[in-house]
Amino acid sequence: MNPIRVTERSIGVNFSTRGEAEVLVWAPRANQVLMYLPDEEEKLNLIKREFGYWSCITTKAKLGDHYYFELDGEKYPDPASLFQPQGVDGPSKIVTLHTYSWADDSWTNIPLDEYIFYELHTGTFTEQGTFSGIEERLGYLKDLGINAIEIMPVAQFPGKRNWGYDGVFPFAVQNSYGGPIAFQSLIDRCHQLGIAVVLDVVYNHLGPEGNNLSCFGAYFTDKYKTPWGSAINFDDAECDAVRRYFIENALMWFRDFHVDALRLDAVHAIKDLSPVHILKELKQHVDKLIEESGRTHYLIAECDLNDVKYIQPVKQGGYGMDAQWVDEFHHALRVTAGNERRGYYEDFNGVLDLAKSFNDGYVFDGRYSEHRKKTFGTSTKELTGEKFIVFSQNHDQIGNRMMGERTSALVSFQMQKLMAACVLLSPYLPMLFMGEEYAEPNPFLYFVDHHNKELIQAVREGRRKEFSAFHQGESVPDPKGEQTFRQSMLTWDIQHKGKHAVMLDYYRHLIKWRKIVSWKRGNDGVEIKAYEEINVMVIRMNKNGHQFLYVMNFSSEQQRLEIESPKMNWVLLLNSDDSKWLGSSFGRPTQLPNSLIVPAESFLLFEAPHV
Amino acid sequence: MNPIRVTERSIGVNFSTRGEAEVLVWAPRANQVLMYLPDEEEKLNLIKREFGYWSCITTKAKLGDHYYFELDGEKYPDPASLFQPQGVDGPSKIVTLHTYSWADDSWTNIPLDEYIFYELHTGTFTEQGTFSGIEERLGYLKDLGINAIEIMPVAQFPGKRNWGYDGVFPFAVQNSYGGPIAFQSLIDRCHQLGIAVVLDVVYNHLGPEGNNLSCFGAYFTDKYKTPWGSAINFDDAECDAVRRYFIENALMWFRDFHVDALRLDAVHAIKDLSPVHILKELKQHVDKLIEESGRTHYLIAECDLNDVKYIQPVKQGGYGMDAQWVDEFHHALRVTAGNERRGYYEDFNGVLDLAKSFNDGYVFDGRYSEHRKKTFGTSTKELTGEKFIVFSQNHDQIGNRMMGERTSALVSFQMQKLMAACVLLSPYLPMLFMGEEYAEPNPFLYFVDHHNKELIQAVREGRRKEFSAFHQGESVPDPKGEQTFRQSMLTWDIQHKGKHAVMLDYYRHLIKWRKIVSWKRGNDGVEIKAYEEINVMVIRMNKNGHQFLYVMNFSSEQQRLEIESPKMNWVLLLNSDDSKWLGSSFGRPTQLPNSLIVPAESFLLFEAPHV
Repeated sequence: MNPIRVTERSIGVNFSTRGEAEVLVWAPRANQVLMYLPDEEEKLNLIKREFGYWSCITTKAKLGDHYYFELDGEKYPDPASLFQPQGVDGPSKIVTLHTYSWADDSWTNIPLDEYIFYELHTGTFTEQGTFSGIEERLGYLKDLGINAIEIMPVAQFPGKRNWGYDGVFPFAVQNSYGGPIAFQSLIDRCHQLGIAVVLDVVYNHLGPEGNNLSCFGAYFTDKYKTPWGSAINFDDAECDAVRRYFIENALMWFRDFHVDALRLDAVHAIKDLSPVHILKELKQHVDKLIEESGRTHYLIAECDLNDVKYIQPVKQGGYGMDAQWVDEFHHALRVTAGNERRGYYEDFNGVLDLAKSFNDGYVFDGRYSEHRKKTFGTSTKELTGEKFIVFSQNHDQIGNRMMGERTSALVSFQMQKLMAACVLLSPYLPMLFMGEEYAEPNPFLYFVDHHNKELIQAVREGRRKEFSAFHQGESVPDPKGEQTFRQSMLTWDIQHKGKHAVMLDYYRHLIKWRKIVSWKRGNDGVEIKAYEEINVMVIRMNKNGHQFLYVMNFSSEQQRLEIESPKMNWVLLLNSDDSKWLGSSFGRPTQLPNSLIVPAESFLLFEAPHV
Repeated sequence: MNPIRVTERSIGVNFSTRGEAEVLVWAPRANQVLMYLPDEEEKLNLIKREFGYWSCITTKAKLGDHYYFELDGEKYPDPASLFQPQGVDGPSKIVTLHTYSWADDSWTNIPLDEYIFYELHTGTFTEQGTFSGIEERLGYLKDLGINAIEIMPVAQFPGKRNWGYDGVFPFAVQNSYGGPIAFQSLIDRCHQLGIAVVLDVVYNHLGPEGNNLSCFGAYFTDKYKTPWGSAINFDDAECDAVRRYFIENALMWFRDFHVDALRLDAVHAIKDLSPVHILKELKQHVDKLIEESGRTHYLIAECDLNDVKYIQPVKQGGYGMDAQWVDEFHHALRVTAGNERRGYYEDFNGVLDLAKSFNDGYVFDGRYSEHRKKTFGTSTKELTGEKFIVFSQNHDQIGNRMMGERTSALVSFQMQKLMAACVLLSPYLPMLFMGEEYAEPNPFLYFVDHHNKELIQAVREGRRKEFSAFHQGESVPDPKGEQTFRQSMLTWDIQHKGKHAVMLDYYRHLIKWRKIVSWKRGNDGVEIKAYEEINVMVIRMNKNGHQFLYVMNFSSEQQRLEIESPKMNWVLLLNSDDSKWLGSSFGRPTQLPNSLIVPAESFLLFEAPHV
């Protein structure tokens, strides 16, 4: 094998400039590999190459043809298939990603520190459940003020309903979402509207159904355990080809789909003790691609290790991820907002930890964790705020509840507004989960559409067991049921009604304020103070000669707060308790000579007059 | 728990300055912990402290007392026992390491780059099989010219006969070797003679017999696999106390036994995905100790990962190990010397790889390995030669053969001399295995002295299986048999006889020459050239204005070598084929006008006249 080329894909079926199909598949243990073209009633012989690869160059395999690989008589779809029109068990289809006519030439990406993320699930975002469904709603998102949509995984999964984490063809875009060309079209349209596209990709496991990779080579290793079974083989025998497979995959999304950033699912479950960690190697390839293409691409890790190594630059010995999700911000916020301290929440004490996360990103940066039963985390001192992505809810935090309740079903309308301010005015990159901006009442449930009966039974049983301790006697929504999926769809028609319309307007306002009043972490002149007894957090911040004051009251009662400013001549910029947002306040909150009365569950934003 | 103090041990039984016993044991899951003193017929209550530790301060437990810990009614020896006078199943004994009267005040250690290692196994080095046995032979070792003995593990193992890798009390010195005070005495004596002491310690597993650690806490984890079962828990729940246990252990050897360097067994089997790897954390503690004590201590890793991260300084993001064993030098050398290319030797091609190892330490520094089926290793470009320890044989390479043959039983007398020159005049730190210096004819077999019958059977069966493919029908020496152990002892009385005396003299010479002609890796003016067809390696080297030429002929025939020096006025310094070392040469080897006739299996060392 040649070194990995960032300018083109090598595995699977690709076309030379002369229009010949170049076929390449890794099958180190096969004695014979054929390419079977049922449409042409043709079987082509592949030739064994170095390091277990097989290849041929042919004019017989044409665009639009279906194909399988036949390994010693057994036929399988292509592990690097670009399209599975009939699903995970059907043939692969020969397509090209190079004929789409892009209209986003002037797009080069948004600076990461300006990203405002909006996480969405293609299948439930719209009634259609497709990329073109999303396209129709881009105007709405643009109007909301977000500038980056983060799309849950689109790699081909079994059936029509899945969060995306059961994908088994990392290179193929889900047929029921519209396939690869529709995905290109969506991204193109986003770019024309100034919206970046973040794609969630899963490099820590593959789904259980339709997964034939082990028949090809050692894609998995039992050296390490993951929550989903055998780990992907990034450092054991035969790992070279596996590393190449995932690096080519990442590069494809950037290069051939114009994806702006990848969100790498659960990188803590990517086990790699090689001298060069696969994430670092990936980063080095992405840097080369950026150099060649002139466009910027980001790598964002979901990581629960609190290990700065992941987000430190490669030059400093890190893996070079551009940013990471900070679940601990979420946990601290939820506990502060009244969430019961059980499960992983037991580690969080409320507003003190929320202030810690506002200061340092990680709550655990070398502190003993009761939940983990060990000292946990590293110091983030050297890092800037755009390394951290925060949220008050996401697909996991919602969907991993038995009933899939969004925050809207768990806390008061008032508290939702306070939590939104926390996220959107934080010194980090904020992320919304689809629908939260208008307090979507529908749940986001866990759903799958597997076909293997035993697997379906195992998934059902797994969910039942997971919730049996805390939800005795309650019935778990059936993950396989279509109704479970349909219940999880957004209710678009309520956006303009009542409190939903109010919330939407409030979110729009917050996003606008973010550009004015948010600060960068590590800036001088920011002081964050938690008042544990009254569950209040206060932030003072200087920005461009302006002085801002954030007051966040998480308690369910109004609180009196001493303010050190003698004259109290602060100007109220935003009051989440304002009656226009269905709050209880009319005009300014009560100000006493040296103190302030803060309404229950409210967020206040003041500006001090210019000095 | 307080942070780890490098100045004193905290776990186990230690004495305060007032003479009270301070007892500390980690048992996070116990409901009751007692200290049982059978001699006193006394049971003391320990009090539960933070993080699962239990402690008491008492005057009832006295020096010389035996004791057990009783956890919820079950009694076990102390995991941090300093002495097990009755073996692994008997009681622990209260001793102190602070009453030995040291006479090595002026000793501060030898610079690492001057170390000449001699690996020995206490049980078979002398007839006595004890530390005092070694003490009696120090004069001999001093006379040989080595300046560092590396002692195979001495942590208490089951029975009387063991290589040491089945130890189960990392803090207790083997009773049958003489226990802790005898070990202190040996080290003291070494230092008085100018000999450094390197101790082999095992932090990647514990032995199977007498291992009660799991009854105390989560010392092991099944997150990772090792060749010896569950990995030691350095990063899973409850790992804090386990990390502390091994760091305190390492510090104890340096501080309380005056050990000069630790050789850390198979660090590739120390699995740790924490933000700070346990080896790096250990290094940081050792650096503190060095600062406090004024003595130097080294950490040497046995590592088969070819990953420079292990030996790079902490400041450069490495783990900071001072040096590592380079098995690949051995493998390349053995294949060059005619070893069959099977098993891990299949990766090595002979003299080209030997030259590669002379140049770069690692043979695999980013090259594809057929044996490992992946691209393997990292570049050593930035590293100096004292980072690498090389040898032509060691306990493993000998003892892991079915019949435990030393090199002396496998290659000719001539070839042994050539291999010795390769090691002792390399740009790396050389290591001998006990007895090789006089061509000890006895094997070094694999032996154990377990008492559990099933375990013994499993060990026997394991050995049989290991060798069944290549040694069909041959009978494997019984690992449990005392005869197997006795056969492995050095034959001291043959040292002064015949070819053994010659070899000894030759080794003494080589060691002396090393100080004059060896070079440092990365020096300018060193040129290493391999002649693959004739199996010859030639090294030209400038040192302090002198020019030296090494010629190594590994072929079994004399070879004619073109020499670029026009006048051939080289002075022969050393000729391993000289008749005084039982070779075939009388005087200089034949020199033709522009070429040299090099005797079969010989080493020649020339110096060019000063220019």
